[in-house]
Amino acid sequence: MPKIFISQKEFERRIETVRQELVKRKLAALYLTSSASVFYLTGYSYIATERPMALIIPVKGKITLFAPLLERDHVPLRTKIIEEVKIYPEYPGEKHPIDYFAEFMKEMKLHNKKIGTDNLAGAAGIWGYEGPPITKRLPKAKFVLAKDIIGKMRMIKSEEEIQLIKESAKWANLAHTLLQEYTAPGMWDVEVSITASYEASLMMRKALGPDYMPVRWGHFPASAGFRGQVGPMSAIPHAIATNKNIQEGDVVVTGAGADVGGYSCELERTMIVGKPNNKQRKFFEIMLKAQEAAFKAFKPGAKCSDVDKAAKKVFLKAGYGKYVLHHTGHGLGLEGHEPPWLDLGDQTILKPGMIFSCEPGIYIPGFAGFRHSDTVLITEDGAEVITYYPRDIESLTIT
Amino acid sequence: MPKIFISQKEFERRIETVRQELVKRKLAALYLTSSASVFYLTGYSYIATERPMALIIPVKGKITLFAPLLERDHVPLRTKIIEEVKIYPEYPGEKHPIDYFAEFMKEMKLHNKKIGTDNLAGAAGIWGYEGPPITKRLPKAKFVLAKDIIGKMRMIKSEEEIQLIKESAKWANLAHTLLQEYTAPGMWDVEVSITASYEASLMMRKALGPDYMPVRWGHFPASAGFRGQVGPMSAIPHAIATNKNIQEGDVVVTGAGADVGGYSCELERTMIVGKPNNKQRKFFEIMLKAQEAAFKAFKPGAKCSDVDKAAKKVFLKAGYGKYVLHHTGHGLGLEGHEPPWLDLGDQTILKPGMIFSCEPGIYIPGFAGFRHSDTVLITEDGAEVITYYPRDIESLTIT
Repeated sequence: MPKIFISQKEFERRIETVRQELVKRKLAALYLTSSASVFYLTGYSYIATERPMALIIPVKGKITLFAPLLERDHVPLRTKIIEEVKIYPEYPGEKHPIDYFAEFMKEMKLHNKKIGTDNLAGAAGIWGYEGPPITKRLPKAKFVLAKDIIGKMRMIKSEEEIQLIKESAKWANLAHTLLQEYTAPGMWDVEVSITASYEASLMMRKALGPDYMPVRWGHFPASAGFRGQVGPMSAIPHAIATNKNIQEGDVVVTGAGADVGGYSCELERTMIVGKPNNKQRKFFEIMLKAQEAAFKAFKPGAKCSDVDKAAKKVFLKAGYGKYVLHHTGHGLGLEGHEPPWLDLGDQTILKPGMIFSCEPGIYIPGFAGFRHSDTVLITEDGAEVITYYPRDIESLTIT
Repeated sequence: MPKIFISQKEFERRIETVRQELVKRKLAALYLTSSASVFYLTGYSYIATERPMALIIPVKGKITLFAPLLERDHVPLRTKIIEEVKIYPEYPGEKHPIDYFAEFMKEMKLHNKKIGTDNLAGAAGIWGYEGPPITKRLPKAKFVLAKDIIGKMRMIKSEEEIQLIKESAKWANLAHTLLQEYTAPGMWDVEVSITASYEASLMMRKALGPDYMPVRWGHFPASAGFRGQVGPMSAIPHAIATNKNIQEGDVVVTGAGADVGGYSCELERTMIVGKPNNKQRKFFEIMLKAQEAAFKAFKPGAKCSDVDKAAKKVFLKAGYGKYVLHHTGHGLGLEGHEPPWLDLGDQTILKPGMIFSCEPGIYIPGFAGFRHSDTVLITEDGAEVITYYPRDIESLTIT
């Protein structure tokens, strides 16, 4: 069986690590509202809506989820870590969910204890949610921000997490290969994206077997696309859409990923539709050089800011400083972007097990943008680039 | 040209309404961090990340966006409402974005004024964002929560918004029709979903013309799917995925929508794969009856809770109270769920222009779930059901 999910043992290890940290900090429990953190500790993935949810990890006592009635039967199908589910009927409800949460905390004898939390409101506050902070309902409890407990754990990927992200890289590679095959002048970028994502998702599931399921809500199992970065719109790093079809002469910037047990790599490429002209070639080659420089700067003991500096140095030397619109990359794994940041302002020390996107880019307004993104793992003695799609301009020319 | 975007005039009207409300409340400006609210007032849609953004509507002075450098060139392509963009380099950056925001507020002479906001932190706080609240950086300003200004405006849909949601209903109907055509025993639900969504999206764009662009990030233009609600998993209202292929005898619960200018309807159906058995038929018919009862309860002057009561009454009378896992519906438009809520605890008065999902459901653990969802507009003298896909069991039987 291919490795496509985090094991029960690993979830148990994570819970144990949390509990040790709680003891160190003299906290009676951790109260989490972030769906990513809930998934990280339990393997239970849900659609985060206005209905508040909270996962409580007490130092002693049952791991408990506070959840709306509509999640009641979902939880036991997806996790064995959660030992009890305390249910409220509905949001907003005749009685507000936060009032239930306060009662649940009393039932757990946590209402007068020191509690770590990722959110002093006591609820994630998605969509149209409104409510008083849990702190107002539990005046005898002392809530302290302890977002960093899970934050720090998530920064260092385990062997299992690395395996899932490496598996993800294969299917992102397939999706991107198909994307490149189908990219042609006259095509609507959305059509190319969906076709490639559809085929890659199908083949991924056929290859991994019927136990495979996507974990993230609303994502293709495997996907590749342009997100609007087509032609002059490629100069908009976070474009959402374009209304121009792909044309001969366009620079396009892509993105690909695949959901394996809730984890994904990040793979992005700059492609040229038709023979690259000198101007395109010049920017492309400098971008590539900046990425190579960043690759070399990854090593345990270096700082996040060192990697950003290494890439920026190349752009500055070429006189392209004004075309740099963002830092060199970010942590990744469960969410699109995660700390730490490959940013001048982030002095976090690189450690084995950290995983980053490496994506220095330049964007020339009205002309084009140039950015590759690869997924990089910090190892004991350097770094390993997990994504392996070709990076050179010849391989990325659509003819 | 088909109507596929909100007009400039309407955005101007919305700004004017905000300013009138600010004057009434003696606020100098509105400070918004929610991407849905920013889109609602300006037409500018962006990918919300850890990089904080804020839209400032002063009573007097320029409508200003605080944004990261990477959005600089994106803004003017998508909106004429934003008159100035104040840029910070990057998050976390050598200087924190919130420190820039505090300076920007000083430049706008708002640092010592009374400011309404949707978020006292001054930043949406997505993904790995961390930072001090803006209130700490501007001790002379008085920030007050005023989320309800935009909240109330968004509750009553304008003529233009209603048009877009009605247009969306056509393409959701196409996507759902294809979904039903392709649903068959042995199929992977994800494959059926992507195929239907792909074809509907293509035809939608061909029909609406090349000016059509999706506005929401990460969504198909038109889509229909199952989201894991297949067979026994249909009893999980917010399932995300299943690893069982569709089988003869399954109950499946679907969902469809389409992005027209950032707005979408909601269309969901319960379908039976193969000839319905008596048990399936019994639950289906009661669900249908509950939805009919809810339809009849929609009228201006009634309360949100009345609609929920009307549907629940049918379920309770049938002895199915224990199978009801959620309220009857929610407001919709720009986001998946919006207030007000068709919930026992929501006494909001129904008014012309409000738009709701109407989706009473019952879920029998281990067996199946039964839920249709239609989009309902409150009119001057009653209600209009905007979605129009067949609801009866004969039409929804896959043979």
